[in-house]
Amino acid sequence: MTLLADLLSTVFERRHRLARTGSRDDRPIEALTAELIGASVEASGLAVARSLLERYAEMDDAAKRGFFHHLARDMNIDESEVQRALEAYAREQTKATYRSFMQAAEPPRQELIRRLNQVPGATAALVGMRADLLRLSGDEDALHALDLDFRHLFASWFNRGFLVLRPINWGSPAFILDKIIDYEAVHRIDSWDDLRRRLEPTDRRCFAFFHPVMPDEPLIFVEVALTRGVPGSIQGLLAESRDMIEAEDADTAVFYSISNCQEGLASISFGHSLIKQVAADLSAELPTLETFVTLSPIPGFAHWLADQDIAVQPDDTDRVRALAAHYLFDVKRSDGLPRDPVARFHLGNGAVLHQVHAAADLSENGLEQSKGAMVNYLYDFEKVARNLEGFAVAQTIAASQEVRALAAAARKAA
Amino acid sequence: MTLLADLLSTVFERRHRLARTGSRDDRPIEALTAELIGASVEASGLAVARSLLERYAEMDDAAKRGFFHHLARDMNIDESEVQRALEAYAREQTKATYRSFMQAAEPPRQELIRRLNQVPGATAALVGMRADLLRLSGDEDALHALDLDFRHLFASWFNRGFLVLRPINWGSPAFILDKIIDYEAVHRIDSWDDLRRRLEPTDRRCFAFFHPVMPDEPLIFVEVALTRGVPGSIQGLLAESRDMIEAEDADTAVFYSISNCQEGLASISFGHSLIKQVAADLSAELPTLETFVTLSPIPGFAHWLADQDIAVQPDDTDRVRALAAHYLFDVKRSDGLPRDPVARFHLGNGAVLHQVHAAADLSENGLEQSKGAMVNYLYDFEKVARNLEGFAVAQTIAASQEVRALAAAARKAA
Amino acid sequence: MTLLADLLSTVFERRHRLARTGSRDDRPIEALTAELIGASVEASGLAVARSLLERYAEMDDAAKRGFFHHLARDMNIDESEVQRALEAYAREQTKATYRSFMQAAEPPRQELIRRLNQVPGATAALVGMRADLLRLSGDEDALHALDLDFRHLFASWFNRGFLVLRPINWGSPAFILDKIIDYEAVHRIDSWDDLRRRLEPTDRRCFAFFHPVMPDEPLIFVEVALTRGVPGSIQGLLAESRDMIEAEDADTAVFYSISNCQEGLASISFGHSLIKQVAADLSAELPTLETFVTLSPIPGFAHWLADQDIAVQPDDTDRVRALAAHYLFDVKRSDGLPRDPVARFHLGNGAVLHQVHAAADLSENGLEQSKGAMVNYLYDFEKVARNLEGFAVAQTIAASQEVRALAAAARKAA
Amino acid sequence: MTLLADLLSTVFERRHRLARTGSRDDRPIEALTAELIGASVEASGLAVARSLLERYAEMDDAAKRGFFHHLARDMNIDESEVQRALEAYAREQTKATYRSFMQAAEPPRQELIRRLNQVPGATAALVGMRADLLRLSGDEDALHALDLDFRHLFASWFNRGFLVLRPINWGSPAFILDKIIDYEAVHRIDSWDDLRRRLEPTDRRCFAFFHPVMPDEPLIFVEVALTRGVPGSIQGLLAESRDMIEAEDADTAVFYSISNCQEGLASISFGHSLIKQVAADLSAELPTLETFVTLSPIPGFAHWLADQDIAVQPDDTDRVRALAAHYLFDVKRSDGLPRDPVARFHLGNGAVLHQVHAAADLSENGLEQSKGAMVNYLYDFEKVARNLEGFAVAQTIAASQEVRALAAAARKAA
Repeated sequence: MTLLADLLSTVFERRHRLARTGSRDDRPIEALTAELIGASVEASGLAVARSLLERYAEMDDAAKRGFFHHLARDMNIDESEVQRALEAYAREQTKATYRSFMQAAEPPRQELIRRLNQVPGATAALVGMRADLLRLSGDEDALHALDLDFRHLFASWFNRGFLVLRPINWGSPAFILDKIIDYEAVHRIDSWDDLRRRLEPTDRRCFAFFHPVMPDEPLIFVEVALTRGVPGSIQGLLAESRDMIEAEDADTAVFYSISNCQEGLASISFGHSLIKQVAADLSAELPTLETFVTLSPIPGFAHWLADQDIAVQPDDTDRVRALAAHYLFDVKRSDGLPRDPVARFHLGNGAVLHQVHAAADLSENGLEQSKGAMVNYLYDFEKVARNLEGFAVAQTIAASQEVRALAAAARKAA
Repeated sequence: MTLLADLLSTVFERRHRLARTGSRDDRPIEALTAELIGASVEASGLAVARSLLERYAEMDDAAKRGFFHHLARDMNIDESEVQRALEAYAREQTKATYRSFMQAAEPPRQELIRRLNQVPGATAALVGMRADLLRLSGDEDALHALDLDFRHLFASWFNRGFLVLRPINWGSPAFILDKIIDYEAVHRIDSWDDLRRRLEPTDRRCFAFFHPVMPDEPLIFVEVALTRGVPGSIQGLLAESRDMIEAEDADTAVFYSISNCQEGLASISFGHSLIKQVAADLSAELPTLETFVTLSPIPGFAHWLADQDIAVQPDDTDRVRALAAHYLFDVKRSDGLPRDPVARFHLGNGAVLHQVHAAADLSENGLEQSKGAMVNYLYDFEKVARNLEGFAVAQTIAASQEVRALAAAARKAA
Repeated sequence: MTLLADLLSTVFERRHRLARTGSRDDRPIEALTAELIGASVEASGLAVARSLLERYAEMDDAAKRGFFHHLARDMNIDESEVQRALEAYAREQTKATYRSFMQAAEPPRQELIRRLNQVPGATAALVGMRADLLRLSGDEDALHALDLDFRHLFASWFNRGFLVLRPINWGSPAFILDKIIDYEAVHRIDSWDDLRRRLEPTDRRCFAFFHPVMPDEPLIFVEVALTRGVPGSIQGLLAESRDMIEAEDADTAVFYSISNCQEGLASISFGHSLIKQVAADLSAELPTLETFVTLSPIPGFAHWLADQDIAVQPDDTDRVRALAAHYLFDVKRSDGLPRDPVARFHLGNGAVLHQVHAAADLSENGLEQSKGAMVNYLYDFEKVARNLEGFAVAQTIAASQEVRALAAAARKAA
Repeated sequence: MTLLADLLSTVFERRHRLARTGSRDDRPIEALTAELIGASVEASGLAVARSLLERYAEMDDAAKRGFFHHLARDMNIDESEVQRALEAYAREQTKATYRSFMQAAEPPRQELIRRLNQVPGATAALVGMRADLLRLSGDEDALHALDLDFRHLFASWFNRGFLVLRPINWGSPAFILDKIIDYEAVHRIDSWDDLRRRLEPTDRRCFAFFHPVMPDEPLIFVEVALTRGVPGSIQGLLAESRDMIEAEDADTAVFYSISNCQEGLASISFGHSLIKQVAADLSAELPTLETFVTLSPIPGFAHWLADQDIAVQPDDTDRVRALAAHYLFDVKRSDGLPRDPVARFHLGNGAVLHQVHAAADLSENGLEQSKGAMVNYLYDFEKVARNLEGFAVAQTIAASQEVRALAAAARKAA
């Protein structure tokens, strides 16, 4: 019933959302924001919020930039007011002085965004607004500061507790699958047939996080292959002619592609929760699974080689492997974290550098970015907490004996 | 598919939710909050958040009060840090100084609550936690200040844009109906048969707001009768022997009971949105509806009469009506708003004082609170914005000629 | 999506169903049946089918009897036509002669009923029509013959392959639960609280078969208790104060009440399939379940005792048990099958007479029907096929040593 | 709830369906059919029915033919038994004699098929079995007679009252859309992009009938374009560059493609019901729709022209239109019905020959079959009953003035 009713009301709201308000509100945008922020909250703001969103939707980039500058400039905190409120609170800590401080310390634009969000369907529009903001901010500090407010609110709204994990499969609605094709960021999906090969077989899975108010928009998704043993190349994993296995016969789940879908949710991190939840769900369904591992690109490898003036041929597989292990294990940024962004992500999640493979991604992109090399990060959920603490506290990289030996060999050779 | 998948994943998560973590974490509660607030957010906090919620669930009131004091004292803002960050921001407005100010100005307990909310199912637990807080706060300002943080977060999480309106009817799950019986706060539901009489007939409706992560818990609900003409008594409206009409033959929708369900969401206002949305939905379904009106109690009437030493008999209907009109229209608090709380709510929503009826609620409670009188507030959605502005700005009460005349008569008689 | 769309279309059809055709068709009922049976099937019959059903719905019993006589008399097979078609087929077996025979050998009323069934929602109406027929048939052979046609069609339409098993629980729609209360035929449900005690605890289950075109009407349902060990009394099983257990801790599933819901589906047998499917589903969910057993009444016991002039006191428990075992094991009808109808049902399903209990149903009805005795029939699914064959072929009753010994003792005592 | 529960149980059953029985039953197929037909119905047949279906699924065509011969020969009616039962019934019409006649007159293979259908998921398998039978029957009368039994049962099981109409759209599961691509029989769907152009725009619709036990298999579907005015060519209707309109602005619904999906349901007619229901649903949703019309091929036109030795060029549009009108309006089979099969279908449904267009289908197939001509059949639901009766009784073709004039011109020219 729950879901049934949900559906009906959602359908209803969607219909409403399309219904235009009819009369356009042509006042200056500053008049609308002033009215919205001044409205006695629940009772009267909805119509003006809707007008503001409609007006925004029609803006070109210049107008959007103007709107963002308005928010950054006119809806910022008032420092002297914060100062006064802070002093009053310091003098006497009461509910009233605390409330005054809270109000003064939060810029009005946060409340404005919350009120815009009252309109059914607004959340997706606001995510789009932030994507615009990120695109148009350039090096203007005021706009970057404004983005911190969006990000603060979105981190609260897109809290893990509000997200829903859904399987994506060949029975999913076509419009969702269409987006999966578009959003796939690691190994391009060429066609609906290619997509089907990644979704339909019993040894393939895909999962995405959704937010209940954006049911048509995946936030992040992961593609999984169920295999016997840890695979060493993406072309083998995705080969049309590969042998399928029964899911029940698999001992390994391979996360071979993770893609974020919403630019407007940049820096709101879902990846760790997704991997953890998917691993938990797969374990519950398939108790024979023993190993959870990625098959990951090494996007910064070729660039680093070039920086070091190291020439290497992809078919010199031993050298490639050793250099890749060295790059992942030893090469750091100034903050002590690995230079490779994918390594930072998985090691930061508590994974282990498990195996390095040469000739593992022979696509144009794979050769160009990483000389064809790939890496397995291993998720051993019993050790994840310890690994992740070591990485966070001391930048310690958890790595297998094999990877350590390879890295050592490369160091020696250098 | 969307909903289907939703369901399956939800079912799955619910199963998980029940699964205990096995080993209880017995460290002092302060160690847990410190670890949670210190965790690199997404990656590691989930387990400790779960432990904290489990520990809280086992606390008695004394321990809960201790926990709240800990949050109020140890997870408050640090004024000197705010001062420093504010000064730095005043010197130079950059992204970095703004971020530092934001972090300093928000008490850590807000982030703590957000992190607790990562646990699937935690939102309902946190709503319960605030209900405890409100119950246990007494006159301690520090706890009332802490409540402002809960309320600030809940206002964001329970934003209108995240709520789903659902019809409640005789096909709703029994466990939801059970809660409707429990939560009905205006006209008690005596039995399942009584409930059925309010839900099953085609001229009766009920709607509730739900939050997607609390699908089993209505937040607020309204009971509606579809009638011909504006009704003048609750006993007539709810009589077992009344004549039912076809919904299509009704010209009036009567909101005769609105009940908030969650004590932990006190001061988060849903009523106006609910009335507006339900009216919009009913209009779309039944285009013949012309009038949207309440049949409301006057809970402060008898008390005011007593304060004024006015003795009145419920069966002196003319006098009762005039006095009730006078009370609603003329009697104000020090802030200029009506003394009657239900009047404040509906007039604050832009409704009109439409008709006053004597002998309209002859239940024990109705006689005791309001000498049997009731009132219709009329929602004319074309005038709601104007009314509500007049009420907000100048405390002007919109009232019909009839009510004005009654009030005038009572003033003259006084 | 499948289900989602299903729902929407179903909702739509339901709306349509309620929409009247507007103009009533007032021709004699015989004109309507003639037109319907004459219609070129798909194209034109729908409107007249709807008219016929509407007319039937308004008939009183006398008119219904008239309608049934019309079907029995005017829509029967034409023997001479059958004879001719049979001879033609005997001369030459071709597709054409076979088709002619098929048409002649099936009475037109079967096709009439199929065409009535084209109207959305008609199936439930036709089930109701048969219930009327059974009620009104008296000893008229022609009406009993007509019933054979209904039954023939219904056996095909309500084939096991078309039925859907659904759990009934405290989240089921209230209108379904209402029917469960009404239809419970073995141990009366006194109130919604009583119902809740049978549905909500984790050690209680209920399942029903539904037909997809009658989604609001259970066909048959079974109530199940999950226990440790085989229970010996219904009052213990249903006691308000009983100790609940976790479903995972149960080793036994007790089918303690099976109720058919639709009089119009009399003689269409669902019970065996229901027990088998529910046992399979419970086994899959709870692998620790080892024993599947009933706790059944012995409805013919007291009557048989009276026939035999045997006086027995319910509290003479040893004697009651022995006599009950003897009655169930030894007392037969003229066709060699057990006299007790519940015994015929479960033994015919391949169950074993497992244990007999005295003082097991101390309700008024239990004492009156069976001197308070009850019986467990054991379903050992590995032996069910063998038992059921023995029972069908040689009327062999499978019984435990204990029951055999009790029966022998009673025989000796007699 | 209804649907929700439905889903869960369906999911459950699907899982079960895949579970093999483990031990294969290797007895001769005749032993299995004998056991199944002899089983005391509900109690014991399920396992053997499942075995039979599994065995059938593994058969090659020769074995299947052997199985069909077995059914045709060994499970036919016994003429002498029918004769005896008929005589007994003629002597005395009782329930018992009627029952005996019914049993004798129905061949055991019908009951066998019903019992096979008890297995969850069997219905789709039996539809496939009939498709095999039709494919393998050749000119063997015994197998065609056997098909009459399948068809008789399927007509009962796939009765309109059991079917569910569902919209097919861009939110439908990919596996359903995949089948739409495969089954489209009139205007080929070239790609997923082509499909999307037929489903996603607001002025395009698609609907299919489904049977509840075959939720993954559409039975028949129709593609609809919403237009202003009656369209005169399929290439205009399907052009990528066409101007879309809002559904609310359309005055005409064009059924431009109707495809049957299941060969095993040949001669079970769904088309009329589908058109009627879709028109009713669209009318309810879009009250501005005034005209319901097809844009149909004339598949027999070129063939007839060749038979008549008439040479005509597709770009001689006037002549093509006149000849096409003449062909459709005047050219009949020996039974007096139109020679063109699509004309027979729509005129038999009560439609009117409305307009004929030349150069309306310039695809290879359109030119080859019908010299590029197409026709609109108009569904005027107020006149459908009269038209259809005229067509059925007197083979009268309802046609517009325009089509009559064109046909007359062609007759004159001939």
